[in-house]
Amino acid sequence: MNEIFDLKTYLEEKRALVEEALGQYLPKREGIYKVIVNAMRYSLFVGGKRLRPILCLTATETVGGESKVALPVACALELIHTYSLIHDDLPAMDNDDLRRGEPTSHKVFGEALAILAGDALLTEAFYLLTHPQLAHSISNGPLLSIVHLIAKASGFRGMVGGQVMDLAATGKKINTKELETMDKQKTGALIMASVESGAILGDGTRDQIKALSKYGYHIGLAFQIIDDILDIEGTTIELGKQTNVDQKKKKSTYPSIMGLSRAKKLASNHIKEAINALVKFGKEAEPLRAIAYYIKDRRH
Amino acid sequence: MNEIFDLKTYLEEKRALVEEALGQYLPKREGIYKVIVNAMRYSLFVGGKRLRPILCLTATETVGGESKVALPVACALELIHTYSLIHDDLPAMDNDDLRRGEPTSHKVFGEALAILAGDALLTEAFYLLTHPQLAHSISNGPLLSIVHLIAKASGFRGMVGGQVMDLAATGKKINTKELETMDKQKTGALIMASVESGAILGDGTRDQIKALSKYGYHIGLAFQIIDDILDIEGTTIELGKQTNVDQKKKKSTYPSIMGLSRAKKLASNHIKEAINALVKFGKEAEPLRAIAYYIKDRRH
Repeated sequence: MNEIFDLKTYLEEKRALVEEALGQYLPKREGIYKVIVNAMRYSLFVGGKRLRPILCLTATETVGGESKVALPVACALELIHTYSLIHDDLPAMDNDDLRRGEPTSHKVFGEALAILAGDALLTEAFYLLTHPQLAHSISNGPLLSIVHLIAKASGFRGMVGGQVMDLAATGKKINTKELETMDKQKTGALIMASVESGAILGDGTRDQIKALSKYGYHIGLAFQIIDDILDIEGTTIELGKQTNVDQKKKKSTYPSIMGLSRAKKLASNHIKEAINALVKFGKEAEPLRAIAYYIKDRRH
Repeated sequence: MNEIFDLKTYLEEKRALVEEALGQYLPKREGIYKVIVNAMRYSLFVGGKRLRPILCLTATETVGGESKVALPVACALELIHTYSLIHDDLPAMDNDDLRRGEPTSHKVFGEALAILAGDALLTEAFYLLTHPQLAHSISNGPLLSIVHLIAKASGFRGMVGGQVMDLAATGKKINTKELETMDKQKTGALIMASVESGAILGDGTRDQIKALSKYGYHIGLAFQIIDDILDIEGTTIELGKQTNVDQKKKKSTYPSIMGLSRAKKLASNHIKEAINALVKFGKEAEPLRAIAYYIKDRRH
């Protein structure tokens, strides 16, 4: 019997797991930490697909590990993603008023607290990653490797570096290769790190980790291309943020450089490559395959 | 023969060590990382006493360890300190144009790149702390503890939390206890973490770590009180930053709450307590004692 994998239920279940864990790791506070934790939690719980943490958990399970062990790492990835959104939305950066259908952090708390909430979320990720309770369930060696690869993917060699290129490229013409380098860093690096850290946490073989890392690379790029396409084709209601922003800000995107239909083709190719990377896996990689198709077909 | 400890030479030597290591860990880059690394290096090498890294190295030596082993951790502390200065100086925060006698990051690179340079420095600290080369010379267990305690001291439970309290207290009257809590977090936490991580790196006993941690607590508070005093008594040329800022911004400081002379007395008391914490150490703690007196008597 060939069961069809129910991705919707799968994502809902994993998302609920992540939300619950996030709430436990960063509970509401009273007293001196109330203001900052409140601002951190606002952006953390305003919504979101929880794609990075889910990819981490799924990668762990794909190589035969237990996703429970990966939960703190998965949540740390979401803390880092959330910090990056808060800082990207700042007036000095993309100056966005809406995110996930709600006012952005600086609109609610002011710029100073928004900057600090981002700083605190980034730092909290490393606090969580090195928590003694986590060290009980993961060997120290792999744990240090994971913290290192996440720091690499988040800093100037990854996400921050991509954001700097994005700033520099705004208003300029860049070529496809430069755009790919930028997207690989801005969005791809943390998505890739999510899959890779999950594979390490699940005690995957070197070959398995390499295959999942390649999968992560391609879905990361596909994700960013689709993001650019949705900025043109999506609506504010669907996306929960302003649309047609890239064109207004004169940002170089795949659609602006190669046109919509070629950009869509390129995204499809990356999804195909991602699926190909999973060729040595059997049914256990069904969730990752389904997530790849979901990224291609997503409307928000 | 009772030799007098030559602190000036000691600090110069340690500072040179730290500067050299920082240059090695964050070398100039060409190509895609040039812009961001350039901005990170600008603030990192614009000057500075390198107090936190020196405290880390000195604490390592005080408990009998080799300071060479502690260098990457020491440098990570300076990366975090530098990020905090860049973000604190932003227009949305303290809006300072001068730092260490030079224009602040956002004045040179603009706000967006200044925010990102701060983000990148913070992330780079954790990249450096978990570098495989570091893991060779320090056991994984203590290393994870150190990363955890530095993250705790830097995030909302420490430095960022203190900055949030500082923002909330600006323009308001707060009492001495609230001010102490704020300073303990804003400045004290990272200074304390510097000494503590050094003691762990030097393989100090539990008692030694506890004693040095207490020392760090008191010099951290003394450091902030002296900072507040220098804002009133110092000159822009001596300090390399604008003075009389606290009063203009209606910030609550020790001098504003209790007057200059009582504030000076309090700083002296903290220095005494710091020295007392070292009672079980002999000559090997001479550098830490000298640093305590230096903090009290500093003019910048």
